[in-house]
Amino acid sequence: MANTNIENNYKNLANRIYDLDTKAYESTGSSLGRHFIGSKEKNIEELVRLLTAKKQSYQLRAELASVANVIRTIKDKPTRKALLSEYNSILQELKSHDTAFESVEIINEKVAELNPSNFSNHKPAKNEHLIICISRSHSSAGNDIGFALADDLHINYYDIDVLKGILNSIDKEKDTQWHEEKFKADPNYAKAVEMAHRISDNQANQLREFSRYHGLPKEDADFFNISKFLVEAAKTEDFVVVGRCADAILANSNIPHFSIYITAPADLRAKHLMKTQGIDSFKKAMREISKKDTMHARYYTKYTRRVWGYAGNYDLCLNSSSYGIDESVEVIKRIIQKSK
Amino acid sequence: MANTNIENNYKNLANRIYDLDTKAYESTGSSLGRHFIGSKEKNIEELVRLLTAKKQSYQLRAELASVANVIRTIKDKPTRKALLSEYNSILQELKSHDTAFESVEIINEKVAELNPSNFSNHKPAKNEHLIICISRSHSSAGNDIGFALADDLHINYYDIDVLKGILNSIDKEKDTQWHEEKFKADPNYAKAVEMAHRISDNQANQLREFSRYHGLPKEDADFFNISKFLVEAAKTEDFVVVGRCADAILANSNIPHFSIYITAPADLRAKHLMKTQGIDSFKKAMREISKKDTMHARYYTKYTRRVWGYAGNYDLCLNSSSYGIDESVEVIKRIIQKSK
Repeated sequence: MANTNIENNYKNLANRIYDLDTKAYESTGSSLGRHFIGSKEKNIEELVRLLTAKKQSYQLRAELASVANVIRTIKDKPTRKALLSEYNSILQELKSHDTAFESVEIINEKVAELNPSNFSNHKPAKNEHLIICISRSHSSAGNDIGFALADDLHINYYDIDVLKGILNSIDKEKDTQWHEEKFKADPNYAKAVEMAHRISDNQANQLREFSRYHGLPKEDADFFNISKFLVEAAKTEDFVVVGRCADAILANSNIPHFSIYITAPADLRAKHLMKTQGIDSFKKAMREISKKDTMHARYYTKYTRRVWGYAGNYDLCLNSSSYGIDESVEVIKRIIQKSK
Repeated sequence: MANTNIENNYKNLANRIYDLDTKAYESTGSSLGRHFIGSKEKNIEELVRLLTAKKQSYQLRAELASVANVIRTIKDKPTRKALLSEYNSILQELKSHDTAFESVEIINEKVAELNPSNFSNHKPAKNEHLIICISRSHSSAGNDIGFALADDLHINYYDIDVLKGILNSIDKEKDTQWHEEKFKADPNYAKAVEMAHRISDNQANQLREFSRYHGLPKEDADFFNISKFLVEAAKTEDFVVVGRCADAILANSNIPHFSIYITAPADLRAKHLMKTQGIDSFKKAMREISKKDTMHARYYTKYTRRVWGYAGNYDLCLNSSSYGIDESVEVIKRIIQKSK
């Protein structure tokens, strides 16, 4: 009984779709206007089959889109409006059925929750800050865009050079602490310091690095310290950070952030590099770009185990050459729904 | 004389930057607050060097960002405001100098002109239409997003299935024309048609295809016909088109369009495919995705000579899994600045 009801529903819907096509055809008169060709019975049968048998029917959607496309060419406004209204009503009914005409979601709830530009799904927590992580291919003006964006939004800006300065301060503080503790613990320490002054700079450097990084290679220790700094900063301030795998670092710590990859075709980046670095050979600039991209990719994969530059790893990728620097800033602001 | 003036200007700017750091440091009191360490003379010297010698100085920008970052931590609001205002004034003066502190543009004017979401640079022509080209990796819900977007914007929707229907109509019309012309030109044609009915369906099909596609392989002929259709449609209507290298086709014809690539991590797409197609093995779904992606990549590269899915080839790439279908539609609308 219930099945017969559903069957009747589908037949009814199929008839409405077919009739809509007929009306659209009559209103345009174009020979291309008619979407359903052949006998009405056969078409209705096929529509019912699509409605019942096929889940996620791309074909059914195509049938509907085809009819709607024809309707939109109707010149008479009241007719067009009436037929579009019938089309929308059919679409709504399809969606309300449990025929799975409704799309299957692709969302990764865990990732989406960390994406602050995802406003309708995401309720920002009380102490949550706006953090924008920019990865970029070499000479794609990603740094310029990041700096201009931070400046425009009046929020902090971190890139390798800024972070280096911060790491230096952290290192110096650690050195001082270390020396102070040694002096306290070891009465012979003063002598050891004197000794250290006598050994070569290189050796002294090695000793100092060992004490700073607990024996880790400098790159790993820097990564560790930068990660720690960014995770702490994310608790207290808004910022833009360029590079340093910040997206992966924040994702690992479940800190909401917007991740964006900026690139442009290689030839344009080479030309950009020629201008910024005063390189006079295009070939040389292309080589430099390829070298730096390889370095970036290695660094990113080493610390994140993800593929650098693959669009599925970021919320969004932007081609800076099709916007330019200022408009890239505007586009990012529109996406995260922030105005000045 | 003029040189001395510029030199003095730089010295003056360097002093202002240094003094700003000092003031910021005094207002925070933090040991990490002071950005410039060492003698004032040495720092000023270094700043002047950055201002004069290095074009596009990333270091100079880093120095400024570091000072600004400290200023933003100042708790006293009037002090913070005063120092930020001095910071902005320094930034403006730097930009107004011809010291090339200003960023070097990466924009490709030709591409940017074709990008309708690039509003501040782009003045739409009188008869220009909103055309959104969506490329997508397999099972990234790119089709769902495209359909929902077209529906939301009340504009036409074309994908492979819709376009197949249109191609069929075009083919039928061509067949009819061809037969009519043959009948007119050749009195023996009626006999030939009779003959054709006697040969196998396969042979008849080959003959018909040859007449339709002028001897081109079907794939090439379809590509040609779809290209022709899209270029014509772009003159009269707004639309969303999914796949079919539409971005490259429209770019070749200098038709403004917004090009977007939709993807998601492969494992999520496999799970999506399992749900939509009722596949029960994750491994099988992963294989299917890899197969279809390879097909898409081959098709795209064959007709465009560009790399499919490389972010530098589109205006923008979107990770559907970090937005979901509905929010992806919203994000695209925000980017192109269209509301319902």
